Amino acid sequence: MRRSVFLISDRTGITAEAVGRSLLTQFEHVDFMLRTLPFIDTPEKADAAVAQIDAIAERDGLRPLLFSTLIDPDIRKIVSRSKGLLLDPFDAFIGILETELQTPSTHTIGRSHGMGNEASYKERIDAVNYALSHDDGATTDHYTSADVILVGVSRSGKTPTCLYLALQFGLHAANYPITEDDLVDTNLPKVLQPHRQHLFGLTIEPRRLHQIRTERRPDSRYADLRQCEREIHAVEAMYRRERIPYLDASHMSVEEIGTTILHRIGRERRLRSG
Amino acid sequence: MRRSVFLISDRTGITAEAVGRSLLTQFEHVDFMLRTLPFIDTPEKADAAVAQIDAIAERDGLRPLLFSTLIDPDIRKIVSRSKGLLLDPFDAFIGILETELQTPSTHTIGRSHGMGNEASYKERIDAVNYALSHDDGATTDHYTSADVILVGVSRSGKTPTCLYLALQFGLHAANYPITEDDLVDTNLPKVLQPHRQHLFGLTIEPRRLHQIRTERRPDSRYADLRQCEREIHAVEAMYRRERIPYLDASHMSVEEIGTTILHRIGRERRLRSG
Repeated sequence: MRRSVFLISDRTGITAEAVGRSLLTQFEHVDFMLRTLPFIDTPEKADAAVAQIDAIAERDGLRPLLFSTLIDPDIRKIVSRSKGLLLDPFDAFIGILETELQTPSTHTIGRSHGMGNEASYKERIDAVNYALSHDDGATTDHYTSADVILVGVSRSGKTPTCLYLALQFGLHAANYPITEDDLVDTNLPKVLQPHRQHLFGLTIEPRRLHQIRTERRPDSRYADLRQCEREIHAVEAMYRRERIPYLDASHMSVEEIGTTILHRIGRERRLRSG
Repeated sequence: MRRSVFLISDRTGITAEAVGRSLLTQFEHVDFMLRTLPFIDTPEKADAAVAQIDAIAERDGLRPLLFSTLIDPDIRKIVSRSKGLLLDPFDAFIGILETELQTPSTHTIGRSHGMGNEASYKERIDAVNYALSHDDGATTDHYTSADVILVGVSRSGKTPTCLYLALQFGLHAANYPITEDDLVDTNLPKVLQPHRQHLFGLTIEPRRLHQIRTERRPDSRYADLRQCEREIHAVEAMYRRERIPYLDASHMSVEEIGTTILHRIGRERRLRSG
């Protein structure tokens, strides 16, 4: 029997999804069926959500789980009258915070993304443009304004990581591919030498690199397992010799790689995370 | 007096940040000082976090607020012994879920991003590559495999939105710029006509577009307010005439634009959102 789950938000639903999914992964023997209901920001939409939840409760003969992040207490009240089990961090914590801070809350939707956020919106767009124009060593101009320059062999995950760092944190993230020519000795390519303090290396298990490259160019020398092993061996030697911090991204999500790098380079998080 | 806040996670901290920040925006008259402590995944790191929290509590003479998403109950127990006020959705909800589902939880960290997620990692990387190669009308090949093709005038937010849709949801998102030449009449550019059902339009307030373009090319015809007004007027007329769904992205974050488009095009969310 599948248990139905609704992820409900007055905004994008990203936070409700993150909270709900993390909690549900703790019940791995239960089969869940998830639906996201974003932008539930009027009583009418809340009524429609309740009707949908109640219909599923009726069909399943079991109450659906509702993970929500609903700021407006009136909307929350409507949803709480459904046949689902409401789990909402606002509901759980806002009263505790009001007591602790000795002030009522404002119950305002959308503060975190309103007009006040335009500066950081612009900062992110600038960061995306920076990442795009400094992708794959396309240009090494403006490296002095880089927050981080990712290095690594082809297909080790540099591009998506740079884009994530730009979109999520507004960082100026460039990336530079370490090619076979760079690996004849283990010295740092000349163009990177003045920017040593901003370099961060990515590495990856040779077998995983081989898989990724094979999808791109099957049966090529580029994708050959031995070739992947040689490049990874050489690039890791370079990182160690040059004391470049690095991580193995083989089994990490883009979020984890990005956040780990941010943490390791000791940058404060600049921007709101939605 | 600033109130210190810690956002604590055994993983990236993105969810703890999202929950904490949303709640804190409800107390707009309080001045908060936020610090993120990610990857608190061993008793040693938890002890170090407690020492840091307690030092701040001592300095401030007020207990810090702790928003956490700690899965391991032992780690949570250590952090709960600090002088901070712990607010953790796991703590609040895991017991309720165990009762409701009549099964104990597994207390396992990192399920949502482990090896099982490799397929979706690959899906996202493919989606990023798709977005990069189909940015700004660079190529219109493979438009048939697009989940969505964003259209809009220059600087209306197409590129970051496509990258977000790719990274966050694994969608194949292309974008095509509507130029002045396309706007001499209000017909859809020929190359887009076979893909009408996948088009989604972005628009933006002319004044905001003027600001954005001015930063890029000050005092140009391109950035002129009248020019921006003309283009926006014409592109919106095209959307209406061609019945292309569209939204005004002037005051939205990249997350909101992306999630709204996903919702409007009726796509299920494919991927975990971390």
